[in-house]
Amino acid sequence: MAAQPTPNSLEEIRALLRELPGPDVAAGMAATERQARLTKPAGSLGRLEDLATWLATWQGRHPPQLERPYAAVFAGNHGVAARGVSAYPAAVTQQMVQNFISGGAAVNQLCGLADADLKVYELALDEPTRDFTTAPAMDEDGCVRALAYGMMAVEEGIDVLALGEMGIANTTSAAAICHALYGGEAADWVGRGTGIDDEGLARKIAVVDQAVAVHRAAIGDPLEVLRCLGGLEIAAIAGAVIAARLARTPVVLDGYTCTAAAAVLHAADPHALDHCIVAHRSVEPGHLRLLERLQQDPLLDLGMRLGEASGAMLAVLLLKAACACHSGMATFDEAGVSGPA
Amino acid sequence: MAAQPTPNSLEEIRALLRELPGPDVAAGMAATERQARLTKPAGSLGRLEDLATWLATWQGRHPPQLERPYAAVFAGNHGVAARGVSAYPAAVTQQMVQNFISGGAAVNQLCGLADADLKVYELALDEPTRDFTTAPAMDEDGCVRALAYGMMAVEEGIDVLALGEMGIANTTSAAAICHALYGGEAADWVGRGTGIDDEGLARKIAVVDQAVAVHRAAIGDPLEVLRCLGGLEIAAIAGAVIAARLARTPVVLDGYTCTAAAAVLHAADPHALDHCIVAHRSVEPGHLRLLERLQQDPLLDLGMRLGEASGAMLAVLLLKAACACHSGMATFDEAGVSGPA
Repeated sequence: MAAQPTPNSLEEIRALLRELPGPDVAAGMAATERQARLTKPAGSLGRLEDLATWLATWQGRHPPQLERPYAAVFAGNHGVAARGVSAYPAAVTQQMVQNFISGGAAVNQLCGLADADLKVYELALDEPTRDFTTAPAMDEDGCVRALAYGMMAVEEGIDVLALGEMGIANTTSAAAICHALYGGEAADWVGRGTGIDDEGLARKIAVVDQAVAVHRAAIGDPLEVLRCLGGLEIAAIAGAVIAARLARTPVVLDGYTCTAAAAVLHAADPHALDHCIVAHRSVEPGHLRLLERLQQDPLLDLGMRLGEASGAMLAVLLLKAACACHSGMATFDEAGVSGPA
Repeated sequence: MAAQPTPNSLEEIRALLRELPGPDVAAGMAATERQARLTKPAGSLGRLEDLATWLATWQGRHPPQLERPYAAVFAGNHGVAARGVSAYPAAVTQQMVQNFISGGAAVNQLCGLADADLKVYELALDEPTRDFTTAPAMDEDGCVRALAYGMMAVEEGIDVLALGEMGIANTTSAAAICHALYGGEAADWVGRGTGIDDEGLARKIAVVDQAVAVHRAAIGDPLEVLRCLGGLEIAAIAGAVIAARLARTPVVLDGYTCTAAAAVLHAADPHALDHCIVAHRSVEPGHLRLLERLQQDPLLDLGMRLGEASGAMLAVLLLKAACACHSGMATFDEAGVSGPA
């Protein structure tokens, strides 16, 4: 694998987005062809078959492999947390990072189950982004550095990259990004996050409304939307999605915040997320609207809203199942099973 | 664990159904109480939390365990297959059993992934049930023996029992059972099974319509519905569901045929399936109607229609995830993470 490029400006990111590699159609066709010969009625494994084909297409090889899943969780702090938009204090971001490191979080247990490596990336937790109701969350340099940091998370030899985040107040940022990218009302994109009460929800809606009004000049330029309304972990996730494409590593996106980070790239190029699937439908009401915009059909709908790649790791279990069936099943000929009468 | 009873008549099965053990409320409450202290916003793991509580409730212990999942696949042949209701010849039932034994089927790969034992139970494959458009599928003795055979599949020390089936033409039997139990039109309950064409689908609908008309005297007695319209593997699944309840073993039901087998018990006692979840929503259109009747919300909806416990084993992966999070996560106190502000 070639070393990842290290962008120095949003313009260089734009250039990368213009030159994203396409699918490996031959590998995908080889997968589809094998599916037809496996000992099952045609199509009867449903999305497991689609997943095997998708993995082959974007890993650029047949058969696809899922021996080395990798979870990258990015953590960042948000100036807008001071506006009372979360049920939890901002200190919880750092505390949860410690919990990831000591193995006590949900994602640790799920990575253990999936035999996945987990890496946690802290993005200057003691330097939150600016409160984006008054100023852009990041200057260009900070945004580009966060994108480049996320790109570096894509190591060589990863079979699938599961992305997740931790950042108190980051569903406020996700909602602001979606409102800026897709319009509608602020309330369309705002949910209760970790569980804020009615009063907090009203505050959160007002904050998102105000933020998008303040940065209306950014609307129409997705990377400017990211810079003005995003966060460091959100920019890092966008960077990781780009780098994974360059490295032929399929990506599993987690919930609302993670999908909103990726949506910035989709707004810049509607094919930018062809190597990504969304793991699950979050309880956050904005997520469903966002999934419709991205034409993504999530694999799971389990009423989850935790983040930290927890939904993504469940989807990795399904990807492992898809690969196991695809590679391990006998063909009709091998097993001496009759085809349709 | 006490040895399983060996019923000798449908009346003895009815007696067992009247005395099914109830939930272990204390174990369930202990699970719910622990969930509230784990390092995540309350409820944010969604159905994974419900699953941990459900496992504790029906295993009768806290914490719940999922070290020993077990898949039981029952195979039977159906006289009605001669009526041209399946895309595949009846010989495929035996061929697929061989494929299970030699490790080439989807369920083998999925059991490997979930570290589950797989046992395949052949029910007199060279003695199909009678064509139920002309006579009851089974006499009482045959039906009871199949139920008892299924009961024996529940071994000691199993943490969860994933049930599945193999039997060419058995979605015809499932449709006939559902039509007899729930009414409506035959066409409401009939789908394409392994992939029959339009002409075959019309034949299948006519067969189900005719079968339920012939056996209308059985309507209102669920075990008679099973005897007249079921199959050996379907009766065995019903037996396994009963035995699992007696042994405090939670059950994961697979797709349409498997759920129809369990529905017979639900029709006899609406609490008979409280220890069961349905793994996934099958493509078979009758399955959704059936799930509504059973008030079951399947965990997965992946467009699958293979049977052989393939969907059930995917659900076992989610149960393992639920247990891993429940037992492995740190509490707020242990991790030094702040609660809501």
